[in-house]
Amino acid sequence: MKAYVKTSRGPGGEVRTVPDPKPGPGEVLVRVRASSVCGTDVHIWSWNEWAQSRVKRVPMIFGHELSGEVIELGAGVTSLSVGDHVSAETHIADGTCYQCRTGKMHICQNVEVLGVDRNGVFAEFAVLPEQNAWKNDPSLDPSLASIQEPLGNAVHALLPEDNIEDVAGKNVLVTGCGPIGLLAIVVARILGARRVFATEVAPVRTRLAQKMGADHVFNPLEEGPELARTIVRETDGLGVDVALEMSGHPASLRLAFDALTPGGRVSLLGLLDREASLNFDDAIIFKAARVHGIFGRRMFETWFQVKGLLERPELRTKMAEIITHRLAIGELPRAMELLTTTQAAKISLEPRW
Amino acid sequence: MKAYVKTSRGPGGEVRTVPDPKPGPGEVLVRVRASSVCGTDVHIWSWNEWAQSRVKRVPMIFGHELSGEVIELGAGVTSLSVGDHVSAETHIADGTCYQCRTGKMHICQNVEVLGVDRNGVFAEFAVLPEQNAWKNDPSLDPSLASIQEPLGNAVHALLPEDNIEDVAGKNVLVTGCGPIGLLAIVVARILGARRVFATEVAPVRTRLAQKMGADHVFNPLEEGPELARTIVRETDGLGVDVALEMSGHPASLRLAFDALTPGGRVSLLGLLDREASLNFDDAIIFKAARVHGIFGRRMFETWFQVKGLLERPELRTKMAEIITHRLAIGELPRAMELLTTTQAAKISLEPRW
Amino acid sequence: MKAYVKTSRGPGGEVRTVPDPKPGPGEVLVRVRASSVCGTDVHIWSWNEWAQSRVKRVPMIFGHELSGEVIELGAGVTSLSVGDHVSAETHIADGTCYQCRTGKMHICQNVEVLGVDRNGVFAEFAVLPEQNAWKNDPSLDPSLASIQEPLGNAVHALLPEDNIEDVAGKNVLVTGCGPIGLLAIVVARILGARRVFATEVAPVRTRLAQKMGADHVFNPLEEGPELARTIVRETDGLGVDVALEMSGHPASLRLAFDALTPGGRVSLLGLLDREASLNFDDAIIFKAARVHGIFGRRMFETWFQVKGLLERPELRTKMAEIITHRLAIGELPRAMELLTTTQAAKISLEPRW
Amino acid sequence: MKAYVKTSRGPGGEVRTVPDPKPGPGEVLVRVRASSVCGTDVHIWSWNEWAQSRVKRVPMIFGHELSGEVIELGAGVTSLSVGDHVSAETHIADGTCYQCRTGKMHICQNVEVLGVDRNGVFAEFAVLPEQNAWKNDPSLDPSLASIQEPLGNAVHALLPEDNIEDVAGKNVLVTGCGPIGLLAIVVARILGARRVFATEVAPVRTRLAQKMGADHVFNPLEEGPELARTIVRETDGLGVDVALEMSGHPASLRLAFDALTPGGRVSLLGLLDREASLNFDDAIIFKAARVHGIFGRRMFETWFQVKGLLERPELRTKMAEIITHRLAIGELPRAMELLTTTQAAKISLEPRW
Repeated sequence: MKAYVKTSRGPGGEVRTVPDPKPGPGEVLVRVRASSVCGTDVHIWSWNEWAQSRVKRVPMIFGHELSGEVIELGAGVTSLSVGDHVSAETHIADGTCYQCRTGKMHICQNVEVLGVDRNGVFAEFAVLPEQNAWKNDPSLDPSLASIQEPLGNAVHALLPEDNIEDVAGKNVLVTGCGPIGLLAIVVARILGARRVFATEVAPVRTRLAQKMGADHVFNPLEEGPELARTIVRETDGLGVDVALEMSGHPASLRLAFDALTPGGRVSLLGLLDREASLNFDDAIIFKAARVHGIFGRRMFETWFQVKGLLERPELRTKMAEIITHRLAIGELPRAMELLTTTQAAKISLEPRW
Repeated sequence: MKAYVKTSRGPGGEVRTVPDPKPGPGEVLVRVRASSVCGTDVHIWSWNEWAQSRVKRVPMIFGHELSGEVIELGAGVTSLSVGDHVSAETHIADGTCYQCRTGKMHICQNVEVLGVDRNGVFAEFAVLPEQNAWKNDPSLDPSLASIQEPLGNAVHALLPEDNIEDVAGKNVLVTGCGPIGLLAIVVARILGARRVFATEVAPVRTRLAQKMGADHVFNPLEEGPELARTIVRETDGLGVDVALEMSGHPASLRLAFDALTPGGRVSLLGLLDREASLNFDDAIIFKAARVHGIFGRRMFETWFQVKGLLERPELRTKMAEIITHRLAIGELPRAMELLTTTQAAKISLEPRW
Repeated sequence: MKAYVKTSRGPGGEVRTVPDPKPGPGEVLVRVRASSVCGTDVHIWSWNEWAQSRVKRVPMIFGHELSGEVIELGAGVTSLSVGDHVSAETHIADGTCYQCRTGKMHICQNVEVLGVDRNGVFAEFAVLPEQNAWKNDPSLDPSLASIQEPLGNAVHALLPEDNIEDVAGKNVLVTGCGPIGLLAIVVARILGARRVFATEVAPVRTRLAQKMGADHVFNPLEEGPELARTIVRETDGLGVDVALEMSGHPASLRLAFDALTPGGRVSLLGLLDREASLNFDDAIIFKAARVHGIFGRRMFETWFQVKGLLERPELRTKMAEIITHRLAIGELPRAMELLTTTQAAKISLEPRW
Repeated sequence: MKAYVKTSRGPGGEVRTVPDPKPGPGEVLVRVRASSVCGTDVHIWSWNEWAQSRVKRVPMIFGHELSGEVIELGAGVTSLSVGDHVSAETHIADGTCYQCRTGKMHICQNVEVLGVDRNGVFAEFAVLPEQNAWKNDPSLDPSLASIQEPLGNAVHALLPEDNIEDVAGKNVLVTGCGPIGLLAIVVARILGARRVFATEVAPVRTRLAQKMGADHVFNPLEEGPELARTIVRETDGLGVDVALEMSGHPASLRLAFDALTPGGRVSLLGLLDREASLNFDDAIIFKAARVHGIFGRRMFETWFQVKGLLERPELRTKMAEIITHRLAIGELPRAMELLTTTQAAKISLEPRW
């Protein structure tokens, strides 16, 4: 089959013809109908510091976000059938570690990630463990089905303890409007948020954030250190109840806490890539703030929430708007260029070569 | 001033002229702009068994749901101003009992209720404790502002522990489509419910339940004992994650549990008025079900949730549809007739005499 | 090997020599060091109505509570070694149903139970799935290790949402002092309960309840309908914050709710075997009570809690006192007689024939 | 009456004779039976930077921790009687701000603190608002009764969401063994913690930490950067489930996160007094850690938990051991010296002059 492959421990990759994969026991073979590009893929493409230390296995097929059709069942698979329309939870948990056995499979200590630790999905076919193949409603558009993982990240960041009391009728701030930030804005609106504020620098994402339903999208470079005060003023002097930090910028990290109402909570998802400095007294202790590190999605509670939310036409419409580009897999270099220069939000890949 | 008064310990009531009330320390005087009729008012009007044992004080002004304008501040009031548009949390808690001191003010053991334990609001003016006067957005329509208490009941029944994991993307059943049931349907939809089922007998309420967004509204008399199985089938064989019992019928109580998925939860709000029989083994123990008794609204977490939800035009539009009749206070006997015969959903009263 | 076998669909059972079991892939073979008798075993022995409809497979080896030594690993087992000291979570979940995939494996819809759905453990050897073999500290006494399942039931009933706010410093009522009730008393004490009340009829269990640390053990037959009032009086007029119903008696069910403080919670574990009548208005709605059906133990959060609690010498000492009889497996008929007549609390079985 | 007074905006203070206070409406007058010294008092005594900016009112009577006897009731007080034995919740909340109205009174935005914003309790008599006067069991030793606030801090830090799942049977780390840290060790033990680790530099506190029940008390200066690895190794390679940072040292902040198991949580209580640097990616995001800022105690849920825990003789015995010195109020300078040089843990003050 054809596949986009990381061929050497350096920047870039190339289309290669590789042997067709076969599903082992407990696995299914999927014909890829749509895939999409995640920030992780960009890091592996550009071969940054994180990728150099994290990726062990080269050559390896790129990519993890996908949707496709089950075309073959490995031995022992019972919950899926040939013809099913599936997406992937791409974190493959071991099921036996302390975290897995205490309801925290999403932070399995021996996790393997598609396209990072084993062959990914930018290919004609892909193999998935049965448990990780999530069955979609047959009518769900393949390109939307492929971006359920970032949607799950957004839902999990918004509801880290599944608790809506901070969202319904409350004020929310999203710093950084990449695809996950944009999806968080839509979901906050659906879940009844009162005011949704966002920050973003790139014009294309700023416009999308407005379309997603943010009340105000601030450019933090223009607003400067006054921004926290502005947000507090816009919330009757209270500050936001929930801040989702999705930019990875130290200034946004501070903003998230400065704009927070006492007793509020902050979800951290954007990687900072280095140490950052914070006044923990003011940011967390005196405010009795709660902070959640967000990694992956709860398996599979978050997926069920995503399934339900996807029944709302409003969400599907807005997800489609977040897909700013639809390219052929063969155009992966162009996708990488668009994302690196933040000219795109989400890029969907079609299985054309 | 004019007021509708329960004048004797028997059915009915009458318009009387009574002295204008004065706000004491920590109280405010409100000019009533809209009020509305609750089931409790119907009980006191018809003087049923519950009313006979519960109501101590006659003569007493009827009613508790209202919105109005603050026109005078008692000594020491600081959080409100003359001219504020307010509604009432009509449960007046003592603030010192065990429940009040452990975050459960809504089940204060010494609660006093407007229109039940002290003079109510079907009048030209009403006095409210400062804490119980909830400040509305000035633009909120007075008749909608008056029905925030039942909206709060609906929100509290849906989210008794503020936990959305059972609602967003999940299946919900509402048995009984009085005003609170109808509001619960709308709110479940806003909070991202996947499927919403309802039961109702009265045609006017059945039509409203459909308008509110219920996927199926069943007539339990027609469906009979098959209904639980039907609902389970409609949910891919799982059953509903949340059932809200708002009818007070023993058969609906059973249905709520029979249609529930294992691990699901039931909120009980509809009063049964007598003992009911249940197979606790099957309904609760083997299913590991959770059950919440719903009384009042959390003070004031639920009110903040309500405030945020009210910013959604969709909710305000549907609330207006639930108000099937707009009458003058002087027409209270007709309102009672319409409600007793379930020809109405919610009746709004305008301060005309 | 020797095993105690249900040989026909009627009362009783007998010792038989059966083929030694072999561990399949993902299973381990265990040499039984101690087992113990649960109420479920008594039902299957006496072949009551529940057993007649529930048990499909006869002949079948009895029993599920055990501890033992791993003596052989099936293919693919990695988390256990030969020589490990293990106990069993005897509910074997399928891992793929809706409940399993949303953190509720303990109410798996396709659960299989040892000694009920497949061969049990009253034998020389037993086969366990890897996931269900819980590794004990090597120094834990085998007979205590065997009764971790009922200890887990007690912990789960006390902390159904892992939430201690109702227990630490609060008042607790346990109705019914079988082994699980007795263990709940000890654990409530360890977790900082303020007052612990219990009800029991059988003298041996009453004395044990006192030893476990209950402040008052009432005989409900002697106390009569005044008992709820007595308990409320003993708690400064408040009532208990948590009631654990473990007797299966309708009168105790009522007592649990009557003695409850508003906003309190009730865990139901004792099976009633038939419908029961309750005033849901007073018991649940007006009280804003919370009710949890208790089935099994959370897998495996509860087990980790049990492991930690077992490090307290106080708990191990009291568990040993609950084991009123230590018999050889061959004396199973006598064990059944002692339990049926409530002359015993927990009976430990040693692998002598 | 006699009182220890901050007389000028500089270090120190002095005994003065001041007018006897009178209780206003809703207040009670208390004769002080015991008081105790908190770190906040030390800051105000030494007049550090925080005190200079925070304290507005001088002269002002020092101190906030106390217990005493109610000797006079202000107008309208109903829940207390003359002769009651009370302690103080010294955070006086306004009851009307956003935080107060959403169950977070302990972070009231207009809080006033005894001995910081208004006259304190190092005096013969003190005035308390009715709500803030906590009624003790009459038999509770006055010096123990006086240190319920730090005990409440410890309980709140250990159970910020009242959730015991991270404590019972789990591993706990306490960095910094001042009085609150020491109390946290005892309470963690009572609540069933599996292993409790602590860090401390001062010998007197190290010995006390061992007495309180810590399994290991490490000197971080001696252990150096290996310490996190040591703790992980001692917990079967997992790391601790809960870390309580009570030292205010940046190195301990890092240790708390480095020693944490993925999915664990950290409570931050020790003030750092300046910015600190952290690798948020590794410490929080990849670990899916939860962080809680701890300020005050939940009002009054934490107090009820404290009341219940105080019924355990084990806790009272250990609290008495934490009181390393019992001095007369007149010896306050010496108390300050002992605390500044960490020769003491908790110092109890007797009302001798």
